[in-house]
Amino acid sequence: MNILNSINSPKDIKALDKALLSQLCREIRDFLIKSISRTGGHLSSNLGAVELTVAVHRVYDTACDRLVFDVGHQSYVHKLITGRREGFDSLRCLGGIAGFPKPAESAHDAFIAGHASNSVSVALGMARARTRLGRDYDVMALIGDGALTGGLAYEGLSDAGESGEPLVVILNDNGMSINQNVGGISKLLARQRVKPGYLSFKRAYRRIVGRAPALYGFLHKIKERIKDILLTETMFEQMGFIYLGPVDGHDIPQMESVLRWARELRCPVLVHVITQKGRGYSFAEANPEACHGVSPFDPEKGIPKNGDECFSTVFGDALKSLAEKDESICAITAAMESGTGLTSYAREFPDRFFDVGIAEEHAVSMAAGMAKQGVKPVVAVYSSFLQRSYDMLIHDVALQKLHVVLAVDRAGLVGQDGETHHGVFDVNYLCSVPNMAILCPASFAELREMLELALYRISGPAAVRYPRGVEGIYKKSTASLPAVRLRQGTDITIVSYGIMINQAIAAAEMLAEKGCFAEVIKLNLINPLDEKTVLASLARTGRLLVAEDVCSAGSVGSRILASVAASGMVLKGARLLNLGNGVVTHGTIDELLALKGLDARGILVAALELVGGNGVRDEESQA
Amino acid sequence: MNILNSINSPKDIKALDKALLSQLCREIRDFLIKSISRTGGHLSSNLGAVELTVAVHRVYDTACDRLVFDVGHQSYVHKLITGRREGFDSLRCLGGIAGFPKPAESAHDAFIAGHASNSVSVALGMARARTRLGRDYDVMALIGDGALTGGLAYEGLSDAGESGEPLVVILNDNGMSINQNVGGISKLLARQRVKPGYLSFKRAYRRIVGRAPALYGFLHKIKERIKDILLTETMFEQMGFIYLGPVDGHDIPQMESVLRWARELRCPVLVHVITQKGRGYSFAEANPEACHGVSPFDPEKGIPKNGDECFSTVFGDALKSLAEKDESICAITAAMESGTGLTSYAREFPDRFFDVGIAEEHAVSMAAGMAKQGVKPVVAVYSSFLQRSYDMLIHDVALQKLHVVLAVDRAGLVGQDGETHHGVFDVNYLCSVPNMAILCPASFAELREMLELALYRISGPAAVRYPRGVEGIYKKSTASLPAVRLRQGTDITIVSYGIMINQAIAAAEMLAEKGCFAEVIKLNLINPLDEKTVLASLARTGRLLVAEDVCSAGSVGSRILASVAASGMVLKGARLLNLGNGVVTHGTIDELLALKGLDARGILVAALELVGGNGVRDEESQA
Repeated sequence: MNILNSINSPKDIKALDKALLSQLCREIRDFLIKSISRTGGHLSSNLGAVELTVAVHRVYDTACDRLVFDVGHQSYVHKLITGRREGFDSLRCLGGIAGFPKPAESAHDAFIAGHASNSVSVALGMARARTRLGRDYDVMALIGDGALTGGLAYEGLSDAGESGEPLVVILNDNGMSINQNVGGISKLLARQRVKPGYLSFKRAYRRIVGRAPALYGFLHKIKERIKDILLTETMFEQMGFIYLGPVDGHDIPQMESVLRWARELRCPVLVHVITQKGRGYSFAEANPEACHGVSPFDPEKGIPKNGDECFSTVFGDALKSLAEKDESICAITAAMESGTGLTSYAREFPDRFFDVGIAEEHAVSMAAGMAKQGVKPVVAVYSSFLQRSYDMLIHDVALQKLHVVLAVDRAGLVGQDGETHHGVFDVNYLCSVPNMAILCPASFAELREMLELALYRISGPAAVRYPRGVEGIYKKSTASLPAVRLRQGTDITIVSYGIMINQAIAAAEMLAEKGCFAEVIKLNLINPLDEKTVLASLARTGRLLVAEDVCSAGSVGSRILASVAASGMVLKGARLLNLGNGVVTHGTIDELLALKGLDARGILVAALELVGGNGVRDEESQA
Repeated sequence: MNILNSINSPKDIKALDKALLSQLCREIRDFLIKSISRTGGHLSSNLGAVELTVAVHRVYDTACDRLVFDVGHQSYVHKLITGRREGFDSLRCLGGIAGFPKPAESAHDAFIAGHASNSVSVALGMARARTRLGRDYDVMALIGDGALTGGLAYEGLSDAGESGEPLVVILNDNGMSINQNVGGISKLLARQRVKPGYLSFKRAYRRIVGRAPALYGFLHKIKERIKDILLTETMFEQMGFIYLGPVDGHDIPQMESVLRWARELRCPVLVHVITQKGRGYSFAEANPEACHGVSPFDPEKGIPKNGDECFSTVFGDALKSLAEKDESICAITAAMESGTGLTSYAREFPDRFFDVGIAEEHAVSMAAGMAKQGVKPVVAVYSSFLQRSYDMLIHDVALQKLHVVLAVDRAGLVGQDGETHHGVFDVNYLCSVPNMAILCPASFAELREMLELALYRISGPAAVRYPRGVEGIYKKSTASLPAVRLRQGTDITIVSYGIMINQAIAAAEMLAEKGCFAEVIKLNLINPLDEKTVLASLARTGRLLVAEDVCSAGSVGSRILASVAASGMVLKGARLLNLGNGVVTHGTIDELLALKGLDARGILVAALELVGGNGVRDEESQA
């Protein structure tokens, strides 16, 4: 018998006999392991959240109740239960179901997710809207202990606790979110976990109150007194929450009854659930971090260690080499030690490595303090997450021209993680940070050299932005020049930077086969921009095509066009290829580039249109 | 005798006889009241921090020890003590001393300040740099209870508490920072304040340990046990800090001894100081909020109620009118109820008013949750502080095209508060938020109409950006059009938007007197941009001048130039007037506009150069 195949909606979960629940959970785990082994995806966190998700669906109705996931990579079981089982073959594939919650995909997904720590704020907004409009549904935020390190979660908890709004924050505490947590909050949780006596006290209390509700007021006072004596109050209680827990996150009946209780309390409640990441899959239990986000694998053999060289590992190795010679270098990461390639560095230089948890704001402000006092901080962070630090970059770093180096990883399209994770806004927002130098390596060699340039040739804020994954056909280094002409031509100037230069080169080669000769200008430094080199090329060719995998606002292409107009130069045609408003779905990077007309073929087509038609951007009228 | 006149550096404070300290503090208060009554500035918070600042300077040497102010409007006493007494006549004036800490001004200012909640992060970075480089100085963060509501402070405290780094966080708790605090943290502090027994216990403990340091290990265990029984542990202790307090913030000897003790502990220490805002000036004690930031006043009569109509009050009144007819409107502010003009709205609609504390990130994410569930949230926030919410605008609001309305107050130059407060980056960063409509009222009438447009004509994210202060000669409303030609001309097109249109109109009038006829195009909607109207005007005049009080990156001017180039149009000349990299000093708005060539006269000069010389941007070569 296969129970999972009979679960087509949460109703089926609610109707299921209690005795069959553990078999269902086993089947869900088998399904996840097999499915993710084919498609890749987030494994450990979903294996850990099986019983928790089932329990939530037995208590709540997510079609009208609002379940707000934090980060949301742990939403696979939820998707599986809410009618999307068939879609798992296409998980994270172009046109397939997303790896994160997405309201456009299902009414059961209350809100998008991807970035951390926002769920309590979003849930509080929903709860307040419900109360305001006089509706009747429940609101839950499901947040991991890792996301709790973010200041936004604290802001949300602080407001929610005082609001009095009925809402339930479910803390999925696996004691290690991505990396082992750092900072005071994780210690706080660790201590909370070892208080089983608290829960049994609460159970007894509930029994008494359940039998004689009238006693509540009197008992409440006694309870508070007992708690003062017996227990250290949790931070959550200090903030105004009723704290329930810790609860065994693999015990469905226990969780069901606590969740029902939480719902009945009609006030802000925090349910503290202890889960084991990777639960039920030996390879993942043994090494949950390596099984966090995985590529396709053989389920019998476990997850192969991802040892491929990529921009992240090259960065980590390069920084390690530089740090060997320069004791003033410090590395900072926001819960992305492994993701940013810093594992080996961290082992070598533990005193000069600071993992601050999911706290990008703090990472940048702390780096500013370090730089002010003479060390060389390098903040390694994903482009999309660095959006969190925009104000700190301006206020703490740039106004004092502090020498903070940003290693902006995952710049450009990131592929399967989709719209919440693409690093497509940084060119715009970093260019507005006063005096920010922005270096764009296209090869491993350039990344090594540009990191050194950023540390030793630049005295103010500097960003080195590089993509997810491996280098392409371009493997040289021209890092010492702000811009370089890679190819001479007469018909059109193709400008690009970073990993996109590979598409530009390939397009130029295909164009040459068709008798159209393109100059290829590679920008190494996009801020400040080397306008002279670009304008000189345009003076020769008269036509401009800029290809970049970022949003159109503040694109390098628009800045070049502005220079053209200011110079008084007249172009025979211009075309800016980019990602428009920056909202791009999930799929492989190659698929997405093709979809957006940014692969070599897309560039070729656009270039031929320009050269053939003597045209301008196709949405514009001709002069 | 005047003691203050003999205080020329912190050394003089250290050498001062204890018996004279209270007279010194009286003199400082008199000086502050007289000085601020002439120049305007932050009054209440500085009056409250007199003894605290004196105590800090008696214990620490800020020339090498690093005192990091949070927000920094409470740094006047520090400036007074550190050799800047003479400069107070020019406080916040162009060329005079700044209203916030500024390292460029004095070696005693460790770091700039202006935005809230970053001080612990910055101080931790400094402490880590000190340890890394083997230096020997102390690091303190001085943070108010208001700034503690910001998530960044929590991130900093969490990391600092666990770091083990010797550093002292001085919590200046006046129980009401700007407005009464909201959220769980303020309740938490309120409870902490009423535990005087704790301090006397600590004093006794210190006496014992002081006499027999070897007892420390043994006593420490006993202390922990006693604390567990007697006291609810503070959140700070849970985070890894040693908590000292509460201390009377107007008792210098008590503070001195606690600060010395804190320094000796060589670990993360939080000193909780209770101060009274406005202390020693009856008008300010009675109404500390009204005396937070003040204009010049008569010290004998107290602070006049600032009842002048300005863009903020017009916004507040307009929102109140709309909310009377539409029950789904909710207003959100981040500790700026009065500053954003919402006092009257808040009184009228307490159930639909949410002051979330200094937590701009949470404000926007919560608004997104509200919008998702069908209410109409309006987030009223200063442009410069909205930088904090950049990621939430993209991730939580824009990806789902949620109808969140931003009332972006203090957009453009703000005057005396200077470089940390100017709202000069929002045009760039808001334009990159997918599908963000940006409306720019230039008059009170337009603000009223555009707020209504944003609420009822736009379905996705919308921002209404308006300046600090009052309207100018332009008082009409053309809100219904995306762009409008205010004046016809043949020689040059002057494009502007928002309050800057007044300078453009005045310049055009002066130009006409000189026989030069300018078209004036007023943009009401800057995103998306009405390129057609601008290009049509340029087709008539051939020359472009854009005047805007924002940074050059992503300026509307650069976007117009890009459109020109893409259209294939050839200009006879173009000039973009803006604020360059966006770093602008303090002074009156009129002074700063003149300084940056953005007043009517500056526009006139630039226009005449363009028309006379047939030129292009002066830093560019001619075509």
